[in-house]
Amino acid sequence: MKIKLVVIGTIYTDFNNRSDVPIQARHANEHLGRVELLEEYERGLKALDGFSHAHLIYFFHHQKRYNLTVKPVVTETSKGIFATRAPARPNPLGTSIVELVSVKKNIIMFRGVDIMNNTPLLDIKPYVHEFDTRTRANCGWYDSVANSQIARGASDPY
Amino acid sequence: MKIKLVVIGTIYTDFNNRSDVPIQARHANEHLGRVELLEEYERGLKALDGFSHAHLIYFFHHQKRYNLTVKPVVTETSKGIFATRAPARPNPLGTSIVELVSVKKNIIMFRGVDIMNNTPLLDIKPYVHEFDTRTRANCGWYDSVANSQIARGASDPY
Repeated sequence: MKIKLVVIGTIYTDFNNRSDVPIQARHANEHLGRVELLEEYERGLKALDGFSHAHLIYFFHHQKRYNLTVKPVVTETSKGIFATRAPARPNPLGTSIVELVSVKKNIIMFRGVDIMNNTPLLDIKPYVHEFDTRTRANCGWYDSVANSQIARGASDPY
Repeated sequence: MKIKLVVIGTIYTDFNNRSDVPIQARHANEHLGRVELLEEYERGLKALDGFSHAHLIYFFHHQKRYNLTVKPVVTETSKGIFATRAPARPNPLGTSIVELVSVKKNIIMFRGVDIMNNTPLLDIKPYVHEFDTRTRANCGWYDSVANSQIARGASDPY
């Protein structure tokens, strides 16, 4: 079974090279990005401006191949691709939680960019505490890696 | 531009009718579900069992049409589809955070089901506090709706 999706807009950021992209949006909150939704979808943004954060779901358009196991540079041993957030995946779908700065017509300005320039956008969903936050979670190998290491952003720590 | 994805497995749950599905996984933590990943992807699960929670990304296979604005039953006014979590969207991609119960071979048992039976699976990502939690978020119209209303689960409050 094949799934076909449509591109609903484009994400523009300052990052044209993968090595420049900050690791995960939370560590990148000084950076601004812009979503240009195709005008035909503009009405779908109604009431989004009441939210402070949203999920962007997008296509990692630079990823062509993947391996089922990868070795994040911050760890000693390989991990299954589904135990990492690495972009090269069987379905290269990316998700980022971004801080909404403004929603005007079909343009969304946001803060907290870990996305490459010209990324095809697939969906936007509002961030809802009640659904999205798990306060008691064990985060596997990420827990054993100093956050600072991830934050410093050696390339591909995932 | 069209995006083509592959189905990597199937999500099995007790819910064959949409009206039976609990609203959002967090409100459904008594229910168990099962992911059967296609065997060819099994190695990709290595180290996932160290995590307590994971995101499942899947295809809302029952959704054929969408409207750009919808009126959740718990609100007075219509909202743009991108300001809701409604399943009928331009790209009917669903995301749920589930609690992992076990990961054995290509089978994942999980708790917290808001997904219909036989749902095509597209991706699994580990839940990582550092990336996924926003403690200070305004959640728009959801904030003005009593959580109990959403938890009670009148059909389609989104």
